[in-house]
Amino acid sequence: MAASDSGPEGAEHVEIVEVGPRDGLQNEARTLSVEDRIELIDRAAAAGARRIEAVSFVNPKRVPQMAGAEEIMAGVTRAPGVSHIGLVLNRRGLDRAVAARVSEVNVAVPATDGFCVRNQGCTVEEMLAALADIDAALEGTGIPLSVTVSTAFGCPFDGEVAPERVVEVVRRVADTGAVEIALADTIGVGVPRQVTGLVAAVGEVAGGRALRCHFHNTRNTGYANALAAVDAGVRVLDSSLGGFGGCPFAPAATGNIATEDLLYALHRSGLHTGISLSGTAALGEWMGQRLDKRPPAYLGRAGAFPA
Amino acid sequence: MAASDSGPEGAEHVEIVEVGPRDGLQNEARTLSVEDRIELIDRAAAAGARRIEAVSFVNPKRVPQMAGAEEIMAGVTRAPGVSHIGLVLNRRGLDRAVAARVSEVNVAVPATDGFCVRNQGCTVEEMLAALADIDAALEGTGIPLSVTVSTAFGCPFDGEVAPERVVEVVRRVADTGAVEIALADTIGVGVPRQVTGLVAAVGEVAGGRALRCHFHNTRNTGYANALAAVDAGVRVLDSSLGGFGGCPFAPAATGNIATEDLLYALHRSGLHTGISLSGTAALGEWMGQRLDKRPPAYLGRAGAFPA
Repeated sequence: MAASDSGPEGAEHVEIVEVGPRDGLQNEARTLSVEDRIELIDRAAAAGARRIEAVSFVNPKRVPQMAGAEEIMAGVTRAPGVSHIGLVLNRRGLDRAVAARVSEVNVAVPATDGFCVRNQGCTVEEMLAALADIDAALEGTGIPLSVTVSTAFGCPFDGEVAPERVVEVVRRVADTGAVEIALADTIGVGVPRQVTGLVAAVGEVAGGRALRCHFHNTRNTGYANALAAVDAGVRVLDSSLGGFGGCPFAPAATGNIATEDLLYALHRSGLHTGISLSGTAALGEWMGQRLDKRPPAYLGRAGAFPA
Repeated sequence: MAASDSGPEGAEHVEIVEVGPRDGLQNEARTLSVEDRIELIDRAAAAGARRIEAVSFVNPKRVPQMAGAEEIMAGVTRAPGVSHIGLVLNRRGLDRAVAARVSEVNVAVPATDGFCVRNQGCTVEEMLAALADIDAALEGTGIPLSVTVSTAFGCPFDGEVAPERVVEVVRRVADTGAVEIALADTIGVGVPRQVTGLVAAVGEVAGGRALRCHFHNTRNTGYANALAAVDAGVRVLDSSLGGFGGCPFAPAATGNIATEDLLYALHRSGLHTGISLSGTAALGEWMGQRLDKRPPAYLGRAGAFPA
């Protein structure tokens, strides 16, 4: 790949967590085969992605799109510096993730009970207890833990979420061994000023853990939010190839911000990601073919600039 | 309309120029009838829009979608405080606009010859001469002139556009009686850092004229750019109902930022527009029905938040 294709050399680095293989696929009508998902993960790595949310260890009866996590982890190409992340919501999932030798574990802890109960079948308090259990079980495995605080910018059931509430959940998460804490706008309602304020507020209680942000473009604010997070000092962003994905509680809505469109914005802002924009855009189009769906991403259609 | 539907009362105001009836329609495959276009303009005003780019006085043989400017101006509901803007590119168009009693004239002056020659059939230097001619002819009419500097963030033919080039064109425009000067990202290639830099640079040579910005969402940076412009002090933004419109030289691409999605971002950022989000979203959907095309805007699908 050309240097400029992955952002200007020597420039400040922003790390991308590629969530397409998990968050991007888990709500799609069409389920990709294990082989396709392995190909997707390996091609994302080949395009330069260094952290890839590869699988989910939730009950495959509840999320059939995510079945086959063990086969996928056994099939992906392991390489130094490439981290394959498994989503885990309880101790049983954690045991599967450890057995499958994931490189990292990510746990989602909603900021609101309304979402937590419907999405994860427990209250936030119960989820925090599950997190403590997972954290304890990870000790000695060498597998790093990151935690994503979902519905941090608004909840489809509880409505507005007070920043103080998010700060409190982050404070609790910082009691664990998590090395990274993410703020997620699960339903895509946030705006940049909210991002700036919330990043500053949680930064004070995050105990020095790295901050990551996760945005959806449901109301066309996702990219603005991502750039605002970078301006606020966040150096890790989630994004999804092709812009696929979305919240099951907002079925008509467009989902995650697209990796290729985010790369365009970051690289043209003078930031480096190490990920190939052209390779990513091609992979987003490939996903669209596999899913028989036009990618929400625009770069594949519009092309980079300058061409 | 509820107060919060048009932004928080008492908050700082951002003025929207609704360009849907002109920029939004001029490249669509389906041409709306004069009656539909009058209805669109009047309904935009009813939703709270105070400045509406209603018509274009270009040669209807070149842009058949824009035929009937005189009938439209004769048919729209005139009301105090509602400004109907006509786009003009030469003296002949200006004479038609004055005869049709437009409230404002807008002239587009590209920053690049490559675009100017292909879009307007003349060089930038010749366009600046046409602008001077238009400006002189407007004297005594009481009709305000605004000028949009197009391809200010990149050109589909000349590639990168140096900020110094844009500054020079703005300096020349500031020699006229224009009361407002706009920076337009005609092909949607800009990023917020570019916006911040360019707004500051042209502010120094704009001779105190109001600055307006015009963004396309071709590569998913349009809303981020609009919010960056506001942060840089710009208080007038163009947007298009439903997000329709686009550049004829980028046919596959999504066009203007959508008024309803922009309103969502502005209102939730604590800014006031005086325009009804719900009314605008409904009107964007209405345009989609008339054009037989799904609006690029998301608010009509996703709904506002809180609902």
